[in-house]
Amino acid sequence: MAAEAAAAAVREQAEVVRRLKQDEAEPERIAKEVAKLLEMKAQLGGEEGKHKFVLKTPKGTRDYSPKQMAIRERVFTAIINCFKRHGAEVIDTPVFELKETLTGKYGEDSKLIYDLKDQGGELLSLRYDLTVPFARYLAMNKITNIKRYHIAKVYRRDNPAMTRGRYREFYQCDFDIAGQFDPMIPDAECLKIVHEILSDLQLGDFLIKVNDRRILDGMFAVCGVPDSKFRTICSSVDKLDKVPWEEVKNEMVGEKGLSPEAADRIGEYVQLHGGLDLIEQLLQDPKLSQNKLAKEGLGDMKLLFEYLTLFGITGKISFDLSLARGLDYYTGVIYEAVLLQQQNDHVEDPVSIGSVAGGGRYDGLVGMFDPKGRKVPCVGVSIGIERIFSILEQRVEASEEKIRTTETQVLVASAQKKLLEERLKLISELWDAGIKAEILYKKNPKLLNQLQYCEETGIPLVAIVGEQELKDGVVKLRDVATREEVNIRRENLIEEIRMRTSQL
Amino acid sequence: MAAEAAAAAVREQAEVVRRLKQDEAEPERIAKEVAKLLEMKAQLGGEEGKHKFVLKTPKGTRDYSPKQMAIRERVFTAIINCFKRHGAEVIDTPVFELKETLTGKYGEDSKLIYDLKDQGGELLSLRYDLTVPFARYLAMNKITNIKRYHIAKVYRRDNPAMTRGRYREFYQCDFDIAGQFDPMIPDAECLKIVHEILSDLQLGDFLIKVNDRRILDGMFAVCGVPDSKFRTICSSVDKLDKVPWEEVKNEMVGEKGLSPEAADRIGEYVQLHGGLDLIEQLLQDPKLSQNKLAKEGLGDMKLLFEYLTLFGITGKISFDLSLARGLDYYTGVIYEAVLLQQQNDHVEDPVSIGSVAGGGRYDGLVGMFDPKGRKVPCVGVSIGIERIFSILEQRVEASEEKIRTTETQVLVASAQKKLLEERLKLISELWDAGIKAEILYKKNPKLLNQLQYCEETGIPLVAIVGEQELKDGVVKLRDVATREEVNIRRENLIEEIRMRTSQL
Repeated sequence: MAAEAAAAAVREQAEVVRRLKQDEAEPERIAKEVAKLLEMKAQLGGEEGKHKFVLKTPKGTRDYSPKQMAIRERVFTAIINCFKRHGAEVIDTPVFELKETLTGKYGEDSKLIYDLKDQGGELLSLRYDLTVPFARYLAMNKITNIKRYHIAKVYRRDNPAMTRGRYREFYQCDFDIAGQFDPMIPDAECLKIVHEILSDLQLGDFLIKVNDRRILDGMFAVCGVPDSKFRTICSSVDKLDKVPWEEVKNEMVGEKGLSPEAADRIGEYVQLHGGLDLIEQLLQDPKLSQNKLAKEGLGDMKLLFEYLTLFGITGKISFDLSLARGLDYYTGVIYEAVLLQQQNDHVEDPVSIGSVAGGGRYDGLVGMFDPKGRKVPCVGVSIGIERIFSILEQRVEASEEKIRTTETQVLVASAQKKLLEERLKLISELWDAGIKAEILYKKNPKLLNQLQYCEETGIPLVAIVGEQELKDGVVKLRDVATREEVNIRRENLIEEIRMRTSQL
Repeated sequence: MAAEAAAAAVREQAEVVRRLKQDEAEPERIAKEVAKLLEMKAQLGGEEGKHKFVLKTPKGTRDYSPKQMAIRERVFTAIINCFKRHGAEVIDTPVFELKETLTGKYGEDSKLIYDLKDQGGELLSLRYDLTVPFARYLAMNKITNIKRYHIAKVYRRDNPAMTRGRYREFYQCDFDIAGQFDPMIPDAECLKIVHEILSDLQLGDFLIKVNDRRILDGMFAVCGVPDSKFRTICSSVDKLDKVPWEEVKNEMVGEKGLSPEAADRIGEYVQLHGGLDLIEQLLQDPKLSQNKLAKEGLGDMKLLFEYLTLFGITGKISFDLSLARGLDYYTGVIYEAVLLQQQNDHVEDPVSIGSVAGGGRYDGLVGMFDPKGRKVPCVGVSIGIERIFSILEQRVEASEEKIRTTETQVLVASAQKKLLEERLKLISELWDAGIKAEILYKKNPKLLNQLQYCEETGIPLVAIVGEQELKDGVVKLRDVATREEVNIRRENLIEEIRMRTSQL
């Protein structure tokens, strides 16, 4: 009993250590508690500790079950169809990059990059987004003109909020257009794509906020922000969708040393949002209209809205001066799509959701990788599927919809014993003909169990072999839903199964 | 000029450092050369070093271009179709696992695991295969019965041989059956799957070698290998497909301390390969037949061959006593598929290729994760697509086949200037109707450039708008291949495009 109590104490201490590690407490505190744990284990001795590891996925990550994968596939299909509809090619890049490839691209977010351990060799980091690897790919292969999509996982050591669809490992679905083109045509297409995807997925009402880094920079200049503070003040503005203005102002003034007057002037601008009317108004703004950058940005914004009008999508677009986007590399138009409310009233606890897509123009990024600094203008959009997936998963849970996780057309079964060989022969014929077929991995399964398996997994047909059927050269084909059975001549079986399952 | 020479010297030194790092030389030597580099840079001062980073993907990894992706998709489609034909569900797991999850599963290969840097929090490693994460998933979710596939990248700090399709980041396509079933039925299905996939992909002649860990262990026992040396001697046998017997024997005797007599006895057995006849012969072997494990293994091997005979695939299966498989976790049947030669005679430099699939039974792995050690018997197969992909890529290169990298059905074009707005309106209608359509991102593109774009990218149709067409309410539809043009009423355009491209 003493040994058991000691073992329990060790387990308790191990839990303390685990929690501390998970919470990412100060290293010293963890080290102290680990030392305590090791001492306790040493006192206990023996095999204690075997099988006592933690059975979990890393913090901020998750597995996808077959049912979740079925939902995920639907989302991917909608997104990929849209990207292909717009003529995009597809590329792939490694999950990690040389550390220096990512250095200096993400501003304040750089601290969230996962580094690999130095095991001798190159210093590597997990990709933080798909945009920087794309720019590296263009520069490395001297590509000056491409329209591509890329769907892959990216990694951020952020504080996960998994119930709201925020993870440390998550998918991005990126569409980008690289090349020297006439202004705002590719930019408008990116917004059209966001509009198409969010409409297709029927996620409820949404709004796409649009701004331009040049308008922001012009605004900062006329408000009296020193050049050197543009990027850091931009990061503060970016927080406006999550925290109130007063807090953002405190950060600007307190932490970042901006004058309260400059902050107040910014405060007035960032309240503004609208459409073509607001663009016209700002083009007349006595201060902004004097700033070259702002004027350029506003001119392009006007052109963008003209194209969006032709696409018929301005109803869901808002020119919003508070939109800043966190990343350093944007140089022109920026945008972000947010879901406005949840459509599905059946869900009792609606997930709180925010941004589901974002992007913008980054004309300088490829040049950062080119040995001669040659620029390739780029604009793109990234769809964040984790939040979308959270919503759809909740919706499926709330509905009665039964999702099939396999596509099996027929179960090869037998009603009598000793027919495993005949089942194997028949299923082999079906597989070779391209029919999706299963058997139960038992020598003598009960017919009831075989039928139940079909009910549970949604298999629509059962092909039953028995002594009599074998003698007659037929197979008994059973419709699981109607329970109807008919004998089909063996040579016609494949055609019959194909015909009956062609609509599935 | 002095500054330039100094800059050149710095670049040279940087290259020395880069090479050393890439070759993974001793850390001390790298540190010394880095120090030298930093000193030279300090002397030079200024902005030297900007844009001077290496533009590459990490060692042993690569990007996939759109053309490569098109080939990769074909391979994936064939493999996924096969997995679905056999009724598999699909799951996904994170790219990294807790380090302890991977510890003690891979034997001598454990040194090849990529660790993440300790940035505070959990200690993580990149997954080394998909099997251990699958076992962790089963134990964590208490699943005792599943048939699933998983296609994802895995990571090994191996010496890459990229021309032969060996990478540090590579895809595995895994199919596994977990559950307590009657002997050898799931095992036989795994081999059927390998046979189907390699036949489908038309990679030329192949052979699937089969053995059983119990037969190997029984063989080691009767040859006089001490129990404690079973796994390490097994690792030596595993090298027989790459190095000659004499070398393997030297490793067994010299490095691993086995008696030369025991090694010689092993040497006789591992030469044997055949079919049912060999199984029968070994079941009569005076020594092996006395060993309980070997007898069990041989009995199951006989049953397996009976099932494979029913599937009609024994022609490509060889029971081979030299097959050992490197990984620690196998407990029963093991197998490995190798390509025997290259079918395509047009290729001048055929890639040297070996194993393209492998797997086996691992009945103990899930139990290693279960707090109470509850076992879930598993058997599975992993298709290594990188080598397959290398072959197909070479074959496409050698042939005249032109691979399309987009699916665009129609280019919306204009012959006159000032029709951008009309092009945007028309393409928007097409997109909304689900037609895959592109425009050139120019205000006034030349018709010739628009037609050339179609030729280059394989777009079959051009929809041309002009002043006259707009007046007449029609669009001129041009067939790129035949150069035929007809006017189509605007309201019939979508239907016409769908009809003309339905076979594509």
